[in-house]
Amino acid sequence: MRTKIKALPESRPASASKDMQSNSSGLDGEQSQEPPQVFTSVTIDHPSRILETVQKLMQGAIYMKKTDTVDLTLTEFSQGYQRLGSENRRKTLFALATQFGVNRAHIRELMQHYLGLQTDDHAQQSDLDEEGCVSALYRTEKDLRHALKPLYITLFERLNAHPGGLKFLVDLRIDLNGAIQEENIPSLRSLDSDLKEKLATWLSPAVLELHRITWDDPASLLEKIVAYEAVHPISNLHDLKRRLGGGYRCFGYLHPAIPGEPLIFIEVALMRGLSQSIQEVLWDEPPIAESEATTALFYSISSTQRGLAGINLGKFLIKRVIELVRQEMPHVKMFATLSPIPGFMQWLLSKLASQSKLAQSSSKSSIDNGEALACTFRENLLLPEEAKAIIEATVETDKSIDPMEVLLKLLSSPRHEWTKSETLSKTVQPLLMRLCARYLLKEKKRGKALDPVTNFHVQNGATAERLNWMADLSEKGLCQSAGIMVNYLYRLDEIEENAQKYFNTGYIKASSYMEGYLKPPP
Amino acid sequence: MRTKIKALPESRPASASKDMQSNSSGLDGEQSQEPPQVFTSVTIDHPSRILETVQKLMQGAIYMKKTDTVDLTLTEFSQGYQRLGSENRRKTLFALATQFGVNRAHIRELMQHYLGLQTDDHAQQSDLDEEGCVSALYRTEKDLRHALKPLYITLFERLNAHPGGLKFLVDLRIDLNGAIQEENIPSLRSLDSDLKEKLATWLSPAVLELHRITWDDPASLLEKIVAYEAVHPISNLHDLKRRLGGGYRCFGYLHPAIPGEPLIFIEVALMRGLSQSIQEVLWDEPPIAESEATTALFYSISSTQRGLAGINLGKFLIKRVIELVRQEMPHVKMFATLSPIPGFMQWLLSKLASQSKLAQSSSKSSIDNGEALACTFRENLLLPEEAKAIIEATVETDKSIDPMEVLLKLLSSPRHEWTKSETLSKTVQPLLMRLCARYLLKEKKRGKALDPVTNFHVQNGATAERLNWMADLSEKGLCQSAGIMVNYLYRLDEIEENAQKYFNTGYIKASSYMEGYLKPPP
Repeated sequence: MRTKIKALPESRPASASKDMQSNSSGLDGEQSQEPPQVFTSVTIDHPSRILETVQKLMQGAIYMKKTDTVDLTLTEFSQGYQRLGSENRRKTLFALATQFGVNRAHIRELMQHYLGLQTDDHAQQSDLDEEGCVSALYRTEKDLRHALKPLYITLFERLNAHPGGLKFLVDLRIDLNGAIQEENIPSLRSLDSDLKEKLATWLSPAVLELHRITWDDPASLLEKIVAYEAVHPISNLHDLKRRLGGGYRCFGYLHPAIPGEPLIFIEVALMRGLSQSIQEVLWDEPPIAESEATTALFYSISSTQRGLAGINLGKFLIKRVIELVRQEMPHVKMFATLSPIPGFMQWLLSKLASQSKLAQSSSKSSIDNGEALACTFRENLLLPEEAKAIIEATVETDKSIDPMEVLLKLLSSPRHEWTKSETLSKTVQPLLMRLCARYLLKEKKRGKALDPVTNFHVQNGATAERLNWMADLSEKGLCQSAGIMVNYLYRLDEIEENAQKYFNTGYIKASSYMEGYLKPPP
Repeated sequence: MRTKIKALPESRPASASKDMQSNSSGLDGEQSQEPPQVFTSVTIDHPSRILETVQKLMQGAIYMKKTDTVDLTLTEFSQGYQRLGSENRRKTLFALATQFGVNRAHIRELMQHYLGLQTDDHAQQSDLDEEGCVSALYRTEKDLRHALKPLYITLFERLNAHPGGLKFLVDLRIDLNGAIQEENIPSLRSLDSDLKEKLATWLSPAVLELHRITWDDPASLLEKIVAYEAVHPISNLHDLKRRLGGGYRCFGYLHPAIPGEPLIFIEVALMRGLSQSIQEVLWDEPPIAESEATTALFYSISSTQRGLAGINLGKFLIKRVIELVRQEMPHVKMFATLSPIPGFMQWLLSKLASQSKLAQSSSKSSIDNGEALACTFRENLLLPEEAKAIIEATVETDKSIDPMEVLLKLLSSPRHEWTKSETLSKTVQPLLMRLCARYLLKEKKRGKALDPVTNFHVQNGATAERLNWMADLSEKGLCQSAGIMVNYLYRLDEIEENAQKYFNTGYIKASSYMEGYLKPPP
């Protein structure tokens, strides 16, 4: 990067700029609203000065008046930033969070002014709308709103309006999340939460284009589908071609400012009835004639942008895909998923570990302390007959050992040994299915389903329909959920009611088949 | 509109809702944050209740949790609103502005909390970023930002994400501007300024698509070009076809959420050299071979949406059109406009009227009061030789009459009589050209060019290049600017500098030819 030095007319002496650079506290509100020195482009005389240069460009991009020269500065800033190593990126983000926040002294002033106004007009409340002091109230509120808007949001907004800037921001958020993991401080968290809010606005479904992805799309786009398919990895070109061909559909959301790269995509298989395993959907059977399809099965939804973590783009995608498929194929009546259960085994194994430990310690100490305390946390995850079956099937000789510990050992054995023995597999099937239903329907975190995929579909209004045993035999499927998969059903006439109820009460609608797992044995 | 009644689970008694309806003061902050009653859809038992229904739907659209049912409510609200007459629309907008603003009691509370936090952390300034009170500071700032965001912005945001909602908002702003003209109160002004800010964000150039409009476009789109061409009206289909055919270009900005309707469009003629009159551009000469063109002449820029008044979409449009034309035709080297001067005659006639009145009264009262006071406001708009020529050409017999009054009478004569006499026309030409140059380059309002078209091009970085006498002989052209038109020149290597200078100092860059008009006679 070797460009000419060009300082704007309103620049001040360079010493002022240095002061600003060294003042890294965003707390005292002493940062000036006017820029000490603004660069549109800067010569780098020495490679070691690139960090300084990038931060100066960042400052210019924030403070400059909004004319064409901002574009140049934005380009140079984003190019410069991308040349930085991770340590310098982190420093730049830290500078952005702390030096380009809000001016707290100014906020304080405005607040005092506002509170003063408030006291004045308390005297007479009626018909004040036409009076000058009401104008002042509105004006001060607006001023305060602007004062409370951190300066870095100007940078975000300008980048959003700049070619390539939106994608740059999405990628910047990946760095930002990395920085927060290193150093979890309020200023960085605040930067991230504001950036996330902005991105969610800019990626509103109104500006996203639904695009059907086919074999005729550019290779550069298809390459991204292969790279980002997160649920059932695409093994080769033949596999990809099948997923884009007859009997299948693939749809992606594209943003006009990020061409050729879907932000999220969904893969659909046209089937007869509700599929039970991913093998039959993707590999075992040839695709059916589309005219015979009765079911559109969503078997994979993948986001491509890590920088959009926490922003739900999929909700509107599913809705719009259902509309499209209904238009094209009125004979398709059922819309359902065949979904992974990514958190089941992790939940179950840690539960088994803690419970078997509790069981051990409580059986040892029951005489000393009584059982009252331990019982509050203790819970036997297994029904008596399940516990008995486990002990029998594993031919456990040590009678003092807790069945939960036996199960834990069995399930965490390397290479999923238990799946290779019919006896073991049949023994664990009922208890795994039962506990999986409980995990899906009852385990919550802050009122929402603990399983992220469950939460995603249920908040979109889907119903938990059916568990499928041995439905995903891949290494990933066995690790995540012991090979179990679940069908969520999108019943069009129920979607709204289900979603509303889940929002209000956390209730997850499930089929009577699913509910059956939760009932105590007779 | 006959739909079922459906109240959400959290609804409260209807009486509470009535209280809220009648509380029309947005000032006291007593409005509750929680909705008294939320409707997703409402039966209208009587036509007279449509206003009440629409306002209830509006309330529902704001307070409802964000699930699919909001979409239904938004649809019903916007359909209902469009059925309202202008009086009821005004009432609804007034309700929106006053009942769905901010909660001022809550703002006061947060401010007091914030100011308390501030005092605490003043004690120690260093390294506070990791402490809990800094977290509280950031949190309170965020809370305040949200509290200062009027509730009606939620409605705007939800409509923006709703199919057809963006266009609805653009149209709503037309009603809003009408309401403000009737009743110019702070709450309505605030509503408008917030809506304008939001619209400007949502219509950022990043999401606008540049589309070349051709004869192959749908008639429904071309119809809009005919309807909205505001500068040189399109008289018939043949005229339209010419403007879209060889030797011409027409480009429009489209928003994905408002399909088939360009928000703004620009018409371009490919010419040899800089054209002097709109007649030669549009009617007198056949189009030239495109390969021989040296100049792209922007002869018309029209906005289609009155609801986007004050939002400059044209800036980026011109820049992008220049880029496109340069790519397609590298032999085109000059980018210029042939522009109307919409405010010239209005400015000149009112100036002549007030000055000739001042001249009269001062000549009468000069003995009584002295001339000091009158002189401060008085200015002879005409040079001595211009005044003499006017008196001679009009054969004015009354020697006491002021030449400015004679000119005023001449220029405001019906059917522009002066244009039909060669003597009169030749007499006024030099003085009109001189005063027009002064109007364009020197007359300012708040530091910006008084003429809106001048301001538009100069803030984009164009240069005022040349005045053209008798360049637009249409009734409109004669009324607005005595038939004078101006060329603005877009010199690519100067655009940024010009724009920056205009922003900073108000200086309008002009050719030496234009500057020549401003020099005092030798």
